[in-house]
Amino acid sequence: MAQQVADRRDIEFVLHEQLNVEELSKFEPFAEFNKKTIDLVVSEARNLAIKELLPCLKEGDEQGCTFENGQVSVPPAFHKPYELFRQGEWIAMSDNPQWGGQGMPAVVALAANNYFNGANFPFMLHNILSHGAGKLVERFGTDQQKQLFLEKMYTGVWGGSMLLTEPEAGSDVGALTTKAVKNEDGTYTITGNKIFISSGENDLVENIIHPVLARIEGAPPGTAGISLFLVPKVWVHADGSLGESNDVACTGIEEKMGIHGSPTCSMALGSKGLCRGTLLGKANKGMSAMFVMMNEARLHVGMQGFACASTSYINALNYARTRVQGKRLTAGKDSPDVPIIQHPDIRRILLTMKSYSEGMRSILFYVGLLEDRITVSKDDAERTRCQGLIDVLIPLAKGYITDRAFEMCSQGVQVFGGYGFTREYPQEQLLRDCKITQIYEGTNGIQAMDLLGRKLGLNNGRAFKDLLGEIKKTIQTATGSQALTPLAASLDQTLAELTAVAEHLAEAMGSGDILDAFAQAHPFMDVTGDTIMAWMLLWRAVVAAQKLRGAPKKKDLDFYEGQIGSARFFITSVLPVTRGKMAAIQSGDAVVNQMSDAAFGAK
Amino acid sequence: MAQQVADRRDIEFVLHEQLNVEELSKFEPFAEFNKKTIDLVVSEARNLAIKELLPCLKEGDEQGCTFENGQVSVPPAFHKPYELFRQGEWIAMSDNPQWGGQGMPAVVALAANNYFNGANFPFMLHNILSHGAGKLVERFGTDQQKQLFLEKMYTGVWGGSMLLTEPEAGSDVGALTTKAVKNEDGTYTITGNKIFISSGENDLVENIIHPVLARIEGAPPGTAGISLFLVPKVWVHADGSLGESNDVACTGIEEKMGIHGSPTCSMALGSKGLCRGTLLGKANKGMSAMFVMMNEARLHVGMQGFACASTSYINALNYARTRVQGKRLTAGKDSPDVPIIQHPDIRRILLTMKSYSEGMRSILFYVGLLEDRITVSKDDAERTRCQGLIDVLIPLAKGYITDRAFEMCSQGVQVFGGYGFTREYPQEQLLRDCKITQIYEGTNGIQAMDLLGRKLGLNNGRAFKDLLGEIKKTIQTATGSQALTPLAASLDQTLAELTAVAEHLAEAMGSGDILDAFAQAHPFMDVTGDTIMAWMLLWRAVVAAQKLRGAPKKKDLDFYEGQIGSARFFITSVLPVTRGKMAAIQSGDAVVNQMSDAAFGAK
Repeated sequence: MAQQVADRRDIEFVLHEQLNVEELSKFEPFAEFNKKTIDLVVSEARNLAIKELLPCLKEGDEQGCTFENGQVSVPPAFHKPYELFRQGEWIAMSDNPQWGGQGMPAVVALAANNYFNGANFPFMLHNILSHGAGKLVERFGTDQQKQLFLEKMYTGVWGGSMLLTEPEAGSDVGALTTKAVKNEDGTYTITGNKIFISSGENDLVENIIHPVLARIEGAPPGTAGISLFLVPKVWVHADGSLGESNDVACTGIEEKMGIHGSPTCSMALGSKGLCRGTLLGKANKGMSAMFVMMNEARLHVGMQGFACASTSYINALNYARTRVQGKRLTAGKDSPDVPIIQHPDIRRILLTMKSYSEGMRSILFYVGLLEDRITVSKDDAERTRCQGLIDVLIPLAKGYITDRAFEMCSQGVQVFGGYGFTREYPQEQLLRDCKITQIYEGTNGIQAMDLLGRKLGLNNGRAFKDLLGEIKKTIQTATGSQALTPLAASLDQTLAELTAVAEHLAEAMGSGDILDAFAQAHPFMDVTGDTIMAWMLLWRAVVAAQKLRGAPKKKDLDFYEGQIGSARFFITSVLPVTRGKMAAIQSGDAVVNQMSDAAFGAK
Repeated sequence: MAQQVADRRDIEFVLHEQLNVEELSKFEPFAEFNKKTIDLVVSEARNLAIKELLPCLKEGDEQGCTFENGQVSVPPAFHKPYELFRQGEWIAMSDNPQWGGQGMPAVVALAANNYFNGANFPFMLHNILSHGAGKLVERFGTDQQKQLFLEKMYTGVWGGSMLLTEPEAGSDVGALTTKAVKNEDGTYTITGNKIFISSGENDLVENIIHPVLARIEGAPPGTAGISLFLVPKVWVHADGSLGESNDVACTGIEEKMGIHGSPTCSMALGSKGLCRGTLLGKANKGMSAMFVMMNEARLHVGMQGFACASTSYINALNYARTRVQGKRLTAGKDSPDVPIIQHPDIRRILLTMKSYSEGMRSILFYVGLLEDRITVSKDDAERTRCQGLIDVLIPLAKGYITDRAFEMCSQGVQVFGGYGFTREYPQEQLLRDCKITQIYEGTNGIQAMDLLGRKLGLNNGRAFKDLLGEIKKTIQTATGSQALTPLAASLDQTLAELTAVAEHLAEAMGSGDILDAFAQAHPFMDVTGDTIMAWMLLWRAVVAAQKLRGAPKKKDLDFYEGQIGSARFFITSVLPVTRGKMAAIQSGDAVVNQMSDAAFGAK
């Protein structure tokens, strides 16, 4: 049977051959995660994804969510896989077993998530929200809050959400107006309205624990006055028993372009004046709590986008291998028709999708590995270095990856021709679902500003330089491999130009040309991302070339050839374009900010 | 009230200041189309588009089409605007008045179509199909066929369609198997199944005239054996009266990603053995008839894609001017929040959308003007030259424009943030609708192959060289305008590199590296399109700079500034990337064709 969702061999390659994840098992917390265990986990995830999640992808899209009398129903088809997912303990894969987590390395959880999200990302959103909310409780909760909520959330008995956005406070979180007033018993009475709340209400679970951003009466304006609260849908008594319903209600769900299986709720808190919550973490420190959670959340969104692209690629590849249409361009009139994979333009699309899918997978898994290295390392400097790398990579793992993922899903439709536009095939749904990943958890414009405004100068620029240093190491290794020398040289040139661009923009930021610098934020994210993509593909090619010099198994020959092929394609076809983008940034015409508002067009 | 669908001033600018369309009125067939008449036509189209077509865009998407017992209903909301559209005689704008056409210049009809398609392109599909089918009758029909069908089709009393695609013959039209057998009375009995037939069945009209591609019994295989037939849904007697229903039935409609207002039908011809049709044109010459119609059809698809992008831009601009979110990046903490048009990243997106919208509009209208020049010219050489320019531009007007249009619609969603993903705003529908324009009427991969394989060498390369020559003329004019000199120099450099790339690919085609050349077909379409886009924007800037040197009206100052701004942005931000793409084509790594099929991934 054809591969589905992801190329299994490629996932194994990244885990075991590129990143040597098994090395983590030398350290205590991950001692039991040897290669065999890792493969078992990934294999189980793959089975569940393909047998249970994938079959209800389309049903979830068609059935969608319904809202009636304040109740939200998810697609009926989601109930059975949810029970299986929950019982399989997949919600808190890399969390503390004390609270129901599985304690596995983050990078292994990402491999499992590749399958889960690639099979049915709208279904997965629910679990990701529960996990994220649980993580907030674990990180910032009191002992009592943890005792009351955490295991129930990590095991999926209860759900979670994140009440952040308000109608007038989207990208500008600091503008939020939801209000909290302290009661005599230490709880807070909360009043406000929130929008775009994924899983804010649903019928998968009996209770939902809502982390809510609100401003305590008298707190400063802006982000400095925002606190975080836990607002359960059904009140939980100190003994853990369920009490009365809280005054937090879903007032409607959005009609949207995609992710129809995930309810996007408008929530009213305290419309009867009776919404109660408890403070989570310290007063006025809600935004710093958000920032702590942000890396994980954004990495997850990158995974969602990538997973759509990865599945779209596998579907396109399978289709191109079986769809017979037209003759080979160089063949005679009487030659037989051939599968479209033999047509150069289809091959170009497929190789584009392949190289992006592979590069994205490596970037995401690499971030996971860095997290795991922080977990196992006893060396503060090393932990700081890894954290710096993660912080620089996160806006790229979210912004750059989802930008490219959406483009890949679009290409994945093209391979199917007219069929790609119909609901008969999954390609158009993957494209529709993928679009949200460029928007939520901070639009990709915000990601680009984060990279330029915060991450480029992080630790006095040390973090960004560390990243460039890692790339340089791979270039040096590749230069020693004859077949890869020209590719290494091309990446080396690109890296030098990226360094110059980064210095140019850092200087512009310092010298007050802030608006002009930020007009280049998105192009800067593009070229940094391209460079990292090329790095990952070259790294993969280095490993593949080493293996080919050994005595690889026959069935692996094609795979390794494909690794070198991806690197060749990306570095020779994409990097020259990247260098063109860098030239455009350097030339830096200031027209974006100089042009008057009126010149954009008549009102 | 804010502009909707398109910037009116910009349409006037292209018609009267860039292309001087009024000059056409010096020639007989267009004598009555002076500036006043042109403006009146466009103004009427705008009114109808905004008042009647735009309001049912969303309704059409939500209501969609229904199929029951072989009957197809279009969205109920479409019936009233259809009657108005029909009565306004908008279906055959530039066709012969003898048959109910309005005889207007093609370029003026395109301006009207900008509004119509920008307001509601799924609604417009029906009219475009009727018109296209009518045009086939006009071009290839016998006197009797014209008498029987043409005026009814051009005036929208009857509809039309185009039965081309079959399940196993999509991009490979020559593989079709629908069969025609000649009867004693000269009619043909036709048997076969067709898919993806827009407006194949609907309840807007009492009769539908289907042009059908089929193979006469005994005809050669491939495209050389395909003939064209006219198959009316209801038989039309020689006296014009309606007879019995023909054996042509809709067997279902597609569920699809977008254009829900347009029914995409599967059609069964002769399932009872009783489907009758008459030959249209000569036997076995069906494909050449298709080729004659192809330019118009593909130009229309370019218009559809562009119109989505143009509307998405206007919506994004209006939204960015009113949506208040965050402070200016350079402003203090206590400064007021500002409309998001003041944020550099939003400005960058808007200026990207603006410059592409404007360039696309100019390309499309220019093709229309070339058609009109052929109509009025008595000089064979000039007509050949214009036809060559059109032939080269068509794959770009379809393929390049719809590729970029889809990207612009995606950017138009981003400007709205989370709201862009919801159905509350039109942005997501424009993105969904736009996607089909990259696929139908020949996928954009096919367009790219057409440009490289047929058009680059057309008339021994004369047509492509003529196009480069036209660009050169604008560069020379711009070089004389001080403010534009650097922009002209950048385009000149790009043009030289494009010439080299074209020669490189032409040589590869000639020397047998056909597969490698075709692997670069799509990138070649990209860079040729970018160059033409830059040409159009520089041409616009030349006109604007001239006007600014005169004494422009105060309200026009902003507009002209915006014209120069678009050119500056595109030429400084996009052309360096284009040159990077050309470098990649020139370096021409052959990996796309060298890599084995198996290396694309495991089966």
